[in-house]
Amino acid sequence: MDWKKEIKDAYNRIEPHVHQTPVLTSSYINSLTGAEVFFKCENFQKGGSYKIRGALNATLMLSEAERAKGIATHSSGNFAQAVSISANITGTEAHIVMPENAPVIKKQATQDYGSQVYFCESTLTAREETLHQVVADTGASRLHPSNDIPVIIGQGTCAYELIEQVADLDYIIAPIGGGGVGAGTILTTTSYAASIQVVGAEPANADDAYRSLEAGEIQASLAPNTIADGLRTQLGDNNFPIIKDGIHSIILVTEEEIIAAMKLVWNRMKIIIEPSSATTLAVVLKSKDMFKQKRVGLIITGGNVDLTKLPF
Amino acid sequence: MDWKKEIKDAYNRIEPHVHQTPVLTSSYINSLTGAEVFFKCENFQKGGSYKIRGALNATLMLSEAERAKGIATHSSGNFAQAVSISANITGTEAHIVMPENAPVIKKQATQDYGSQVYFCESTLTAREETLHQVVADTGASRLHPSNDIPVIIGQGTCAYELIEQVADLDYIIAPIGGGGVGAGTILTTTSYAASIQVVGAEPANADDAYRSLEAGEIQASLAPNTIADGLRTQLGDNNFPIIKDGIHSIILVTEEEIIAAMKLVWNRMKIIIEPSSATTLAVVLKSKDMFKQKRVGLIITGGNVDLTKLPF
Repeated sequence: MDWKKEIKDAYNRIEPHVHQTPVLTSSYINSLTGAEVFFKCENFQKGGSYKIRGALNATLMLSEAERAKGIATHSSGNFAQAVSISANITGTEAHIVMPENAPVIKKQATQDYGSQVYFCESTLTAREETLHQVVADTGASRLHPSNDIPVIIGQGTCAYELIEQVADLDYIIAPIGGGGVGAGTILTTTSYAASIQVVGAEPANADDAYRSLEAGEIQASLAPNTIADGLRTQLGDNNFPIIKDGIHSIILVTEEEIIAAMKLVWNRMKIIIEPSSATTLAVVLKSKDMFKQKRVGLIITGGNVDLTKLPF
Repeated sequence: MDWKKEIKDAYNRIEPHVHQTPVLTSSYINSLTGAEVFFKCENFQKGGSYKIRGALNATLMLSEAERAKGIATHSSGNFAQAVSISANITGTEAHIVMPENAPVIKKQATQDYGSQVYFCESTLTAREETLHQVVADTGASRLHPSNDIPVIIGQGTCAYELIEQVADLDYIIAPIGGGGVGAGTILTTTSYAASIQVVGAEPANADDAYRSLEAGEIQASLAPNTIADGLRTQLGDNNFPIIKDGIHSIILVTEEEIIAAMKLVWNRMKIIIEPSSATTLAVVLKSKDMFKQKRVGLIITGGNVDLTKLPF
């Protein structure tokens, strides 16, 4: 595929409907890390995360006939909201399969957008089966949060926007969960700014991507026990080859490091970022020598946090 | 005084040293309130609050000889940090009297800036006496957080910047505590945009300004029991006449309304605002008819919150 063209087309496709999110800096954090750190703030994006970029790009790439039948996914988190908003933007219907035990606030938010919500048991099998039935019943197009190529390309528009906003970055650090934004970022840098190294940030307690790189094939995410709830998923067959070929490295961070980085940003920058996003700053704080005097972009993936369950 | 000139001069004086803070909007909050709401985000200001504007303006207006002897104040909150930063910017020394029972995080922050900190009992008498002694010993210039004219004018630069950023506002809502930013805002609107009405937001549990307006003279703030810790103080003899003559009204909000507004902003806008700032949105939510289809600027005074003691 002509990734360079695909990414630019995706950007032009979604740009009228999404926010151009700001890039923020903190002189305190720069002095603390010795790096120049640029926060690409997708926590201010529609739905509170970058996920709208991929969901909307994929939805807009469907034919009119396909789109008329709706879009469907299973998600307990940010992708559910992204698909719901994409349906509203494009005038179609969203069918969302959610586990019964999803947080009330996320169930409510998804229903508030007017989406059809289907509850099921929280196992992956139950979610897949329920989604399969929904798709069979409705003819809706199924969207995968991190492994569909149109979704991956859409997530890449975040880095595309970042490198338009900030020149001469040395590194971009992206959280690695399902692999969508990691792969999308790599497609963007290799197409538009090949001198930028992409580093993955992953919780040590959910280190399946790190192990996958070592093994050379996708390793399962087994019982991930991390506060970074967006990063508990595992890589997919479309994004793994891109990540394997293009990533500089994956750096693991502990739960304590994630929470400390999150608290630092809340306290100093007065913005709300979710734990998955805090992994990126935790990487910089942990590997100061590597990033010293470098210009480092952080993909701040989202800001959806349950305020009644904070780790501090 | 030529307030119009004073405010512009103050803005030009401090502008090289402070942040031009952004104005944010939320389509969700607009649809919820029926108003067009503009958040003037001084939570992103240096030191995490607007207080630097007044402190720095006053410091820069001192003579070289005065400034060489340092600046002094008593404060347990945002003004302590503002004076500390002002001292660093101008190359002088800050002497800060703080009550022993001030939050550890604020004690630490003030010391981190390199200020001389003097601890005393938490009574107003002890604070005044300690400060009196510090000034006698050092010859430092005393700064009052809300009643010195150069401080009030400096706080007015926040509204000055806001009306440059957003045209045709109908209202500006400012929290009323000691009265500094309220009076400064009124001086700015009467000088530069006389059609804008200034509304004060005050906790019902610290309603001394509301009562002062009714009585026509300053009423004491007696045992204020509000989460809006920046608004527990009372008006001063310099700012009260300005407020009395120029304010449209003061609207009282309950603790529950303050917390709900704060939570709404954190959840939807992903920015951290302190309870004192949330009073302004609480006013809009409480008085929807008054602000319906109006363009309303909110002075978001700061974002300094103890994350370990949140009300939700």
